[in-house]
Amino acid sequence: MAEFMTGMKRTNYCGELRASDIGKTVTVCGWVQRQRDLGQLIFIDLRDRTGILQLAFNDATDRAIFDKAFSMRSEYVVAATGVVRERSSKNPELPTGDIELEVTDLRVLAKSETPPFEIVEKSNVKEDLRLKYRYLDLRRPDVQDKIIGRHKIVKVARDYFDDNGFFEIETPILIKSTPEGARDYLVPSRMFPGSFFALPQSPQLYKQLLMLSGFDRYMQVARCFRDEDLRADRQPEFTQIDFEMSFVSADDVMEIAEGFMKLVYKKVLGIDLETPFRRMTWDEAMTRFGSDKPDLRFGLELADLTADLKSTEFRVFKGAIDGGGGVRGINLKGLAEKLSRKEIDKLTEWIKSYGAKGLAWTRLTAGGETSSYEKFLAPEEAAAVRKTLGAETGDVLLIVASDENKVVFDSLGALRCELARRFDLIDKSKPCLLWVTDFPLFEYSKEENRFVAMHHPFTCPRLEDLDKLESDPGSVKAIAYDMVLNGNELGGGSIRINDPELQQRMFKALGLTPEEAQKRFGFLIDAFRYGAPPHGGMAFGLDRLVMLMLDCDSIRDVIAFPKVASSSELMSGAPTDVDEVQLAELGIAILPKDDNRTKEKQ
Amino acid sequence: MAEFMTGMKRTNYCGELRASDIGKTVTVCGWVQRQRDLGQLIFIDLRDRTGILQLAFNDATDRAIFDKAFSMRSEYVVAATGVVRERSSKNPELPTGDIELEVTDLRVLAKSETPPFEIVEKSNVKEDLRLKYRYLDLRRPDVQDKIIGRHKIVKVARDYFDDNGFFEIETPILIKSTPEGARDYLVPSRMFPGSFFALPQSPQLYKQLLMLSGFDRYMQVARCFRDEDLRADRQPEFTQIDFEMSFVSADDVMEIAEGFMKLVYKKVLGIDLETPFRRMTWDEAMTRFGSDKPDLRFGLELADLTADLKSTEFRVFKGAIDGGGGVRGINLKGLAEKLSRKEIDKLTEWIKSYGAKGLAWTRLTAGGETSSYEKFLAPEEAAAVRKTLGAETGDVLLIVASDENKVVFDSLGALRCELARRFDLIDKSKPCLLWVTDFPLFEYSKEENRFVAMHHPFTCPRLEDLDKLESDPGSVKAIAYDMVLNGNELGGGSIRINDPELQQRMFKALGLTPEEAQKRFGFLIDAFRYGAPPHGGMAFGLDRLVMLMLDCDSIRDVIAFPKVASSSELMSGAPTDVDEVQLAELGIAILPKDDNRTKEKQ
Repeated sequence: MAEFMTGMKRTNYCGELRASDIGKTVTVCGWVQRQRDLGQLIFIDLRDRTGILQLAFNDATDRAIFDKAFSMRSEYVVAATGVVRERSSKNPELPTGDIELEVTDLRVLAKSETPPFEIVEKSNVKEDLRLKYRYLDLRRPDVQDKIIGRHKIVKVARDYFDDNGFFEIETPILIKSTPEGARDYLVPSRMFPGSFFALPQSPQLYKQLLMLSGFDRYMQVARCFRDEDLRADRQPEFTQIDFEMSFVSADDVMEIAEGFMKLVYKKVLGIDLETPFRRMTWDEAMTRFGSDKPDLRFGLELADLTADLKSTEFRVFKGAIDGGGGVRGINLKGLAEKLSRKEIDKLTEWIKSYGAKGLAWTRLTAGGETSSYEKFLAPEEAAAVRKTLGAETGDVLLIVASDENKVVFDSLGALRCELARRFDLIDKSKPCLLWVTDFPLFEYSKEENRFVAMHHPFTCPRLEDLDKLESDPGSVKAIAYDMVLNGNELGGGSIRINDPELQQRMFKALGLTPEEAQKRFGFLIDAFRYGAPPHGGMAFGLDRLVMLMLDCDSIRDVIAFPKVASSSELMSGAPTDVDEVQLAELGIAILPKDDNRTKEKQ
Repeated sequence: MAEFMTGMKRTNYCGELRASDIGKTVTVCGWVQRQRDLGQLIFIDLRDRTGILQLAFNDATDRAIFDKAFSMRSEYVVAATGVVRERSSKNPELPTGDIELEVTDLRVLAKSETPPFEIVEKSNVKEDLRLKYRYLDLRRPDVQDKIIGRHKIVKVARDYFDDNGFFEIETPILIKSTPEGARDYLVPSRMFPGSFFALPQSPQLYKQLLMLSGFDRYMQVARCFRDEDLRADRQPEFTQIDFEMSFVSADDVMEIAEGFMKLVYKKVLGIDLETPFRRMTWDEAMTRFGSDKPDLRFGLELADLTADLKSTEFRVFKGAIDGGGGVRGINLKGLAEKLSRKEIDKLTEWIKSYGAKGLAWTRLTAGGETSSYEKFLAPEEAAAVRKTLGAETGDVLLIVASDENKVVFDSLGALRCELARRFDLIDKSKPCLLWVTDFPLFEYSKEENRFVAMHHPFTCPRLEDLDKLESDPGSVKAIAYDMVLNGNELGGGSIRINDPELQQRMFKALGLTPEEAQKRFGFLIDAFRYGAPPHGGMAFGLDRLVMLMLDCDSIRDVIAFPKVASSSELMSGAPTDVDEVQLAELGIAILPKDDNRTKEKQ
C-alpha cells in the first residue's frame, strides 16, 4: 500500500529552487527521474513540470528513510522534505545544479512498473508506442512544453480579443446537418429515433446569426469536426480561433487579425512582427508562385512561357496551349552542377503526383548544355524561353505544360518548395507573413459537374464582379482573404453576403434550387429577412498556428490526446463497439459487413 | 438591392455618445428601433448593442436622405453619418438623451420584414416562439446582457486559473464510451463501421491522465454531453469549469475554488464574498435540512422524532421506524393562521411526488388545536414530539414518516424550501455559499441491486474508512465536496484514488469484475501502474453558475442557442433526417419504428 501525504504540504516546485534557498526547509513532490546508489550515498533526481532537483541521502539520514531511498525506481512518485544545501559537485547543466535537498522525510506516494520507454527529452521512440502511452509521453519535458505553449497562445488570443471588444460566445456542438463541404460526423438522437444531430465543421452559421443578433464582435476558441480521410496534418477534431465582426470591411478584419499575430508573437516568442502584412491577390500568388499560400522566403518564381510558344509545333507544348492551359517554368539559378540528370529524372517521377505528365528541362552547365525539349522547338522559340527565364550558364530550367492551368500551378508550386528545401534556399531568419486576397468565388468541380463555393456559400463576391455572377461565374472574385505563414495557410475568412437576394443568386449559381437551399439553410435564410448587418470574419487553425509557432513537425505534437490517421485514439482504443441496448435505444442497427459493401458500391 | 457602406466607416457606437461629443461628425450603425414621422421632422431611434441614439431629419436635410428616412421601418439596418447636436427636448431615461444626430448621410444596409415579435426588453412572448427566432430574441438588450455577462464570468475564470498556475488543456470530444452514470451520446465511425465514439460526459478520465502526466494544475472550460431525459435546468450539452490539481488535499482544492468565487463575484457583480465558506458534512446537511445542497438563508430545520416515537403503536410511524426508516418534522413557526387546513391538504398531495405517503400535521392556532395524528399517539408521545419541535401556539408541525430515510429527507427538504418561498422567509440580502463534505462513497441502487458510486468510481474514500470498503460499504464516506449557492449545487469534486490496488477494491465494491473494469477503463487502469500522484479537483456547472449570478430563471437564458426539453433546437429544427448515403457510409441503418418498439420492450 502506498503512503499518503498526510501532515505534509508541498512548499516548492523542484525546478524553482536556487542557491538563494540554501538553509530553507522545503517539501517537494514529483517523479523519480533516476536513482544512483553509491553505497554510503544515494542520489535521486526528482522531476516535476518545472525541472529536476537532486535529493541527497547519506550517513546522517535516518535509516528507514535511507532504506526507502534505496528502493526507489524510475517514475516512483514521492514527496520529500529536507533542507536545501550547497552541492559538493555542482552541475552547470541544471538550473538547480548548485544545490541539493538533504532529505529528512520521504514518502512513497505511488510505485511504478518499468515504463515501456524512458521519460527523456527528444525520445526516438516510435510514435505509435508514444501515443498508446500518451500519458507517459506527456511526461517528457519537451512534449509538455508544447502543450503549455499552446495554453499561452490561446490565453493571449482570448486576452487580445477581449481587449478589443469581442465577446466569446459558445455555439452548439450538437447541430443540424447541412451537407456542403466536408463530411459531417453524425449523432443519432434517442428522443427522435431516425433523426440525427451533426457535429459542426465550424461555427459559421451560428457566428453569422450572432452578427444578425447585434453582438457586433464575436470570438470563440471553437472545436470543429470533419469526417475526412486524414492527412498527416489533419485531425477529426480540431480547434479554431474564430471571430466575426459587423459593419466592417475586409481591411478591418485583417487589421484585427494582424494585431493578434503581432501580440502573440511578441508575448510568446519575443518576436516583433511588422504590420500591416504584405498583401497579394490570388491571381498574383498563383502566377508568380504557383500556390495560393506562397512561401516568400525564397525566389524561384514561375515564368509564363505560353506566349513564347504560342506557335510551336512541339506536340507536348502545343497540346497544352491549345487545350486551354499553358506552359510555365522555373529557373533554378546557378545550381546546374548540383542537380544531376539523374536527380531531374527522379523529380520527373515525383512531380507526376501533382498531375503533371512530366518535366521538361534544360541544364546549362559550364561543361555543356543538355535539354529534353529544345530539339523539338524552333531555335527562336528555344531562345525566347531562355530569355523569359533569364537563363545563364549554370542554370537549370524546369518546365511544366498542361492543358489544365491548375496542374501547371500545383506542380511548379510544389517543385519550387521542394527545390528550396533541397538546396537550402529558405531565409529562416524571421517568419514571413502575408495575405492572399481576391480568391475566386467558385471553383469548378469536375466530379459534380457544377461550380462549388471555394470558401463557403455565404462568401460575398467583389462588388465590381456582381454582374458576372450568372454570366461568367468562373471569373468572379470573392472578398476573401487567407493569412499565410511561411507557405502555410494559417487561416482565412471573408466578408459575408448580407443581402437575401444576393444570397439566393449565390445558391442558384451553386446549382441549389430554392427548395434545396431552404431545406439545408432555411433558418439562416429566414434570419436574413429581418435585417442582417454587413459582416465578415475569419478563423485561424489553432493547431497549425501552435505547431508553426513552436516549430513542431506535426499537429499531433501540440494536441494533448491526438488521434492518428485512421481517426482512432491509440490510448483508449476509441472508437469501440457498444452495447446492443444502446443502439436499440437510438433506433439504429449496424449493417452486416456485406450489406455495407453492397451499399457502398451502389 | 441594399446599399453598401463603401466609403463610410463606423466611428462610434450609438450608446456611447454624450453631450461632450456635441459638434463632432460621427458615423454610427445599427437597427431601427422605431421611426417617428412628424411631417416636417423625422426621428429614428437607432439601436446597437451599446444602446440607442436618436437620428434627426428636418428641413435642412437633403431631400433624398429625408425620403430614405421616411421609408425606414423597424429592424432595418442602417449606417448614418452626421453631426452630434444638443436635443431640444431631452430624454432623461436614455444615457444618450441629451443629444441627437443631425444626419447628413444615410444608407439602408438591409431591409427587414416585420419581425414575429417586437424587439423590446422584458418581452412576454412565449418561449417557444422566442427560441424559434432566437436570432431576434438575442437582439433584446436584457437577453444580450446575459450572454455578455457569461463572457465576463468565463473570462474571469480563465484569468484566475492562469494567474494561479493552471494550464488550460483541451481534451477530446470524440472519446471511448465508458458507460457508468448517465447515457452517452454516440458517434458512429466511418473508418471503423460498427464502432462508435462517445461524446464526453465530463473530461474526468483525461484530466486524471493529465495529472498522471505531471501537468500539476489543469483547467478547462469544457463542453460536456449527457443523453438524459431533460429537466427544466438541464441541457444535452452543457459547460463545466473543470480543474484538477496534483499533490493536494481537499482543503487545497476548496481554497482554489473559493478564490475563484470571491474574484468572480467581485469583478462581475461588485459583491465581496467572505472566505473561507462555511462547511457542513453531508450527514449534518441531511439531518438538519433534508438536503445535500441546503439553503441556509432561512431556518425551518428538520427535527428527528424517531426517538420520541420509538414505542408508538401508531401504525404509520411504527411501520416507518420498524422498517429501518424514521419520523422527522418541521415546525413552521408562528404561521398557523397563514397555513390553512386546505393548504395543508394541498401540500400533502404535492409532497407525494417526493415519495412520501402523506404529511402528518398539527395546527396550533390561538383559536384551537387540530392534528392529523395526535389522536393516534399516547399523550406522552404527542407531548414529546411537540417538545422536540419546540411547538408553541401559532405554530404548524409538519411530519413525514417513511421506512426509507431518503424519502423522509427528500420530502421534508423540499417542503422546507417550498414553505420558505411561500412565506417569504428567505434572506436575499447576500449570496449564501457553503461546502457540503464527506459524502457517502456509495449509494445503493435498488434497480441494479448493487452499490453504485455516488460521484464516480475514482473518488477516494476517507482514509479512516478504508477498512470498511468491503465489510460495510454503505457507511464509507468519500473525500468529496460540493459547493452550494443558495440551495443550488454549483459544482463538486473529490480527491481521487491514486493507488491501483485501492482502485481495484473500489471496482470490486461496485460489482465490476476485473475483466469488466479492464474493458471499460483499461487505459486508465494501465496508466495508474506507472506512478500516479495524489490528485483531486472539481468542476463548476458554468450554465448554472451564470444563471444564478445573473439572476435568471432558466439556464436557457444564459446559453446563446439552447435546446428545449425534447433535446431539439427549435431554430434549426435539429435533429433532422439525413441522407441514406451518409448512413450507408457509416455502416448503420435506421430500425423500422416497429422493430424499435419491440427492442425497447425486451
